[in-house]
Amino acid sequence: MDKIVMAKRAASEKAAQYVRDGMVVGLGTGSTAYWAIQKLGEMTKNGLQIKAVATSNQSEALAKELQIPLIAFTDIDGIDVTIDGADEVDDEWNLIKGGGGALLREKIIASASKELIVVADEGKKVEQLGKFHLPVEIVQFGYELTLRKLASYGCIPHLRMSGEKRFITDNGNFIVDCEFGRIEQPSELHVALNMIPGVVENGLFIHLATKVIVGFGDGSVRELGR
Amino acid sequence: MDKIVMAKRAASEKAAQYVRDGMVVGLGTGSTAYWAIQKLGEMTKNGLQIKAVATSNQSEALAKELQIPLIAFTDIDGIDVTIDGADEVDDEWNLIKGGGGALLREKIIASASKELIVVADEGKKVEQLGKFHLPVEIVQFGYELTLRKLASYGCIPHLRMSGEKRFITDNGNFIVDCEFGRIEQPSELHVALNMIPGVVENGLFIHLATKVIVGFGDGSVRELGR
Repeated sequence: MDKIVMAKRAASEKAAQYVRDGMVVGLGTGSTAYWAIQKLGEMTKNGLQIKAVATSNQSEALAKELQIPLIAFTDIDGIDVTIDGADEVDDEWNLIKGGGGALLREKIIASASKELIVVADEGKKVEQLGKFHLPVEIVQFGYELTLRKLASYGCIPHLRMSGEKRFITDNGNFIVDCEFGRIEQPSELHVALNMIPGVVENGLFIHLATKVIVGFGDGSVRELGR
Repeated sequence: MDKIVMAKRAASEKAAQYVRDGMVVGLGTGSTAYWAIQKLGEMTKNGLQIKAVATSNQSEALAKELQIPLIAFTDIDGIDVTIDGADEVDDEWNLIKGGGGALLREKIIASASKELIVVADEGKKVEQLGKFHLPVEIVQFGYELTLRKLASYGCIPHLRMSGEKRFITDNGNFIVDCEFGRIEQPSELHVALNMIPGVVENGLFIHLATKVIVGFGDGSVRELGR
């Protein structure tokens, strides 16, 4: 098995051990969360009793295939634990997410969860956020004005494309990938960006993660201290 | 003429006097902004040279009918002045807007404008914001979770309906009308609501208005001091 895949899988399987009978579980999206869903499917087959909500149509389809019971938002008071990946994670457990374009749904689920366990291969661990372009979801109306406001915070904004066309999120919005290089004050930037009219949400996850599990190419894992 | 109509019209006509040749003008939405657009149409017919952007399809259609030249966002650097109505305005010129459902587009335009002239009949002037239910635009996904978060800020959230169906904004989102009664700290609430994942924008316009013109039933107007 590929070393990066090995790392992702090891972190995800460790995270799944925190899931207990009776929990409502949030299912993340992406190539790392995929392995967590696989593991939860196996555990469900072996008798684990959980109900799940998904952060994307993709993860929902995978859960169905693995016969993990899904539940509607109307039928729950909250989510016990969510397992999800990240594009970057720093020493304070702050994250950049949204490379896959599902940041808004992921953040809604994460912020409704008592626990957010982040799973990542070692390559995602950084000293400082910002090398990965920060995804920002914006409304289509007046996007030229919003791009200009984003640039005023010191980034080069790239409107995400899907081939020849503009990428459209599940919520009907655009994604702008903001090239910061280094993000000095993630917490302040997080608020500033969300206060721009036209910005729906941004990919900074500040103080949301409650546990970070990093996987390595040799199959070992390490819970990140803080 | 009805006294409220008289008041709205008087305020709007006064506001239009601040528009000069060569300006890019933002056109508001609603029953008061209607009169401003009418007046600008008349002034354009008499030789005023402006270019306009609209906050709704409705206002755009009216501008076209009156032969006010429209311009695309790609072709402008910013907006010189926007004239728009409000549902409530307090002594600090803070506003509640969005009764008509166009708050997001109105806020994008307002925040890109050098000047925002608010026009209102005397009934919109309040000591404290909040009697008018605060409109909040939210994404459809996980709206049950978002309603719960909104309620945690001390309001009764009412999902806006359009007959039997849920009201959908021009941007494909829901509107929640939040019944606060009194909003003690509009500036803090404005930030807190926008930081809820799932909230796209809220109807509090804080420090955006640069002039407030109140019209009275006898056709007189008064510029609000601060």
